Amino acid sequence: MTNRQLHLNLFVHGRGHHEAAWRHDGATHRSLTDIAYYTDLARKAEAARFDAIFFADALGIGDEVVHVAKGGLEPITIIAALAGATERLGLIATASTTYSEPYNLARQFASLDHITNGRVGWNIVTSWVSGAGPNFGDDRQIEHAERYERAWEFIDVVGKLWDSWDDGAVLDDRAAGVYARQDAIRRIDHVGPRFRVRGPLNVPRSPQGRPVYVQAGSSVSGRQFAAAHAEAIFTAHLDKTAAKGFYADIKTQAAALGRAPDSLVILPGISPTIAATEAEAHRLADELNALTHPAVGLDRLADRFGGHDFSHLPLDGVLSVEDFPDPRKVQAAQSRAIAITDLVAREKLTLRELLHRLSGARGHFAISGTPEQIADTIEDWFKSGAADGFNVMPPILPSQFDIFVSEVLPILRRRGLFRDDYEGRMLRDHFGLSRPHSQYFEPQTGLE
Amino acid sequence: MTNRQLHLNLFVHGRGHHEAAWRHDGATHRSLTDIAYYTDLARKAEAARFDAIFFADALGIGDEVVHVAKGGLEPITIIAALAGATERLGLIATASTTYSEPYNLARQFASLDHITNGRVGWNIVTSWVSGAGPNFGDDRQIEHAERYERAWEFIDVVGKLWDSWDDGAVLDDRAAGVYARQDAIRRIDHVGPRFRVRGPLNVPRSPQGRPVYVQAGSSVSGRQFAAAHAEAIFTAHLDKTAAKGFYADIKTQAAALGRAPDSLVILPGISPTIAATEAEAHRLADELNALTHPAVGLDRLADRFGGHDFSHLPLDGVLSVEDFPDPRKVQAAQSRAIAITDLVAREKLTLRELLHRLSGARGHFAISGTPEQIADTIEDWFKSGAADGFNVMPPILPSQFDIFVSEVLPILRRRGLFRDDYEGRMLRDHFGLSRPHSQYFEPQTGLE
Repeated sequence: MTNRQLHLNLFVHGRGHHEAAWRHDGATHRSLTDIAYYTDLARKAEAARFDAIFFADALGIGDEVVHVAKGGLEPITIIAALAGATERLGLIATASTTYSEPYNLARQFASLDHITNGRVGWNIVTSWVSGAGPNFGDDRQIEHAERYERAWEFIDVVGKLWDSWDDGAVLDDRAAGVYARQDAIRRIDHVGPRFRVRGPLNVPRSPQGRPVYVQAGSSVSGRQFAAAHAEAIFTAHLDKTAAKGFYADIKTQAAALGRAPDSLVILPGISPTIAATEAEAHRLADELNALTHPAVGLDRLADRFGGHDFSHLPLDGVLSVEDFPDPRKVQAAQSRAIAITDLVAREKLTLRELLHRLSGARGHFAISGTPEQIADTIEDWFKSGAADGFNVMPPILPSQFDIFVSEVLPILRRRGLFRDDYEGRMLRDHFGLSRPHSQYFEPQTGLE
Repeated sequence: MTNRQLHLNLFVHGRGHHEAAWRHDGATHRSLTDIAYYTDLARKAEAARFDAIFFADALGIGDEVVHVAKGGLEPITIIAALAGATERLGLIATASTTYSEPYNLARQFASLDHITNGRVGWNIVTSWVSGAGPNFGDDRQIEHAERYERAWEFIDVVGKLWDSWDDGAVLDDRAAGVYARQDAIRRIDHVGPRFRVRGPLNVPRSPQGRPVYVQAGSSVSGRQFAAAHAEAIFTAHLDKTAAKGFYADIKTQAAALGRAPDSLVILPGISPTIAATEAEAHRLADELNALTHPAVGLDRLADRFGGHDFSHLPLDGVLSVEDFPDPRKVQAAQSRAIAITDLVAREKLTLRELLHRLSGARGHFAISGTPEQIADTIEDWFKSGAADGFNVMPPILPSQFDIFVSEVLPILRRRGLFRDDYEGRMLRDHFGLSRPHSQYFEPQTGLE
């Protein structure tokens, strides 16, 4: 295949991305702590030749659990458990730079990359969720800028650890009694403002060199970080214009840092509600909205605005921008807060309507339509510089994913936009990324 | 079965517990980073109806890797990957209280217990290995007492987190729109000298309530900790007398704390070199010793004595206690250092002979003999108050484990000492342990 091809991830969230999905008939009846639920989804995603399956994460849980299906399994353990149930599918787990130790994270991901034979991605997050800090001795929420400073140093440290064994460091020479080459394993002796880490890692360099770096930050600091480090970017936009602006900005910033345009793929979230007719699709979306609980939406909206309380506003009153605090002062996912106030400024929405808009996919692009319409949108975004592919967020799991696979994928394949089969074995192969050289690699004196 | 039954774990270490095992023909030819190696061992252990498979851990690696097969996979990820390859076998992973965050550890183990349907054990270590600290910003090695103080508070915190959801907290009532019971999920609001953790955990209470607590410390502080918390104790003794003393001490200390004798099982390590005749078994042990590299043994001996250098001593000179620093001042595994100096005081050993004694199983009980002799020893320790079972440490993997299963187990079964089949599904069932009540459980007002 020489045509530029779409990249597609399955983003797993609860029983679907719509906050009321768990109540719907089309949602799994398995428990969120039942690994069989995730194994089934992974096998389906692999059969559909998706690039990867992706698990988000949050380091805390709040009262919303009363009305929303939450509290599942930890992503690193899920990914490890899925390794044996799949052969080619990429497996992407989220882990935090703010509340992990670099040595622990580096060895778990190196281990995962070995266990999966090179299929692992690390979704790098700085843990903006307001409930995380107090679970780690941190009563104030660590500020946005501080989290990113730590993230930059963190990725420097883990990068060195992953390179601390050269490829080929393990000789395993039984006859001579030499297991590893002393000159191919090194301390990293990192000393920085936040971390002092000696190394080496206690895991040899992994099949992909290191996990694929995935990132989702879209604030100014988030974009800078992504342009410098990310190899796949999961991004949230409410419309194509915003997605195009983001796409151009990131690729330009990356180019300015000397990175080739295809060394990172940009994958906006898309949450498609799919039915045979447009009317039916809208009816399904309405059905889901009717199952929501306003308290959940209000909690989430509050979370987007640093804990600001919206519950005194009438649900059916029209909103104005004055009802919101300044989104530029939000210490969390700034870009999404800005997108919300922009939306309120643009359209006359009641609070209830806004909550419904956000209930579908938490600020990601939600769309209802026929398979043809969904495929058209995907193709349009893909060809007009808004996306290299998508992070597919089915509103209901597994039913809406099943429909995506059986109805939308064949259209994309007929149009030559999506692979019939995998061409490689590793996640880097699926994303079209090259294997990174070790930072300690010296071509002149390197390994034969 | 009403007879008291042996508990048997398979302790996996490199390509066998003997430090030169990796060079031997009977050792696997798979890489230490190949999950298939561990999957095969786990399946064999399950087919043999072992209680569990156990993975130790260390948070650093040193120069000994040049001559010893080290640098494998991280235990939590191994265990998760083995979940799908086994159905009944207990899976025990080591993780550190010194260099982990309680919230991260609690959720990974809760997740593992769900993924395995209740087959997980946590081997609680305080990370004495000298190379660990500098990988976590800690240039001095945290002292023995300080590590145990942290461990006590750590286990208090994770215990609360694992109980922060009541059994039955998830209602999953789709019709009423109520996912979880608000009154059954609580903050833990832990505030202590080392940790402040709010909770709740973001994972529901797991099948076993929490992982089975496994522990191996045998210093004074280690024993106190074990008597209070451990449900299975992996212990290292060079002979039966030491094992009996330890056994009596721990059960007495536990009883003084109000614990029933069968609420904890004591499993000394045993590393049996097995062959059809005693002479052949000794020849195999000698063969392994001939494959050792003195630098490895000297490094390990140094590690046992806080970095003390023994390399100036002649390999074939007889040792005296004066060649050793005071083992009671060692800030690491004190009890093993004491056992070594006791051995030197008791027997006239050359340095090379001592290294060979220790090369087999790093201070655990090593024995060479016929299947009958191994079974006799196991039965003797089991019946004379030295053990409730064993942590089986095959000197060569998988070949010496295969022989244990095919030759020793049938003898133990004929004698009515070991199960023919599992009676339960969870690790707690195999060990004969009851499921812990939640510390927040109140019988009067509790769940129906």
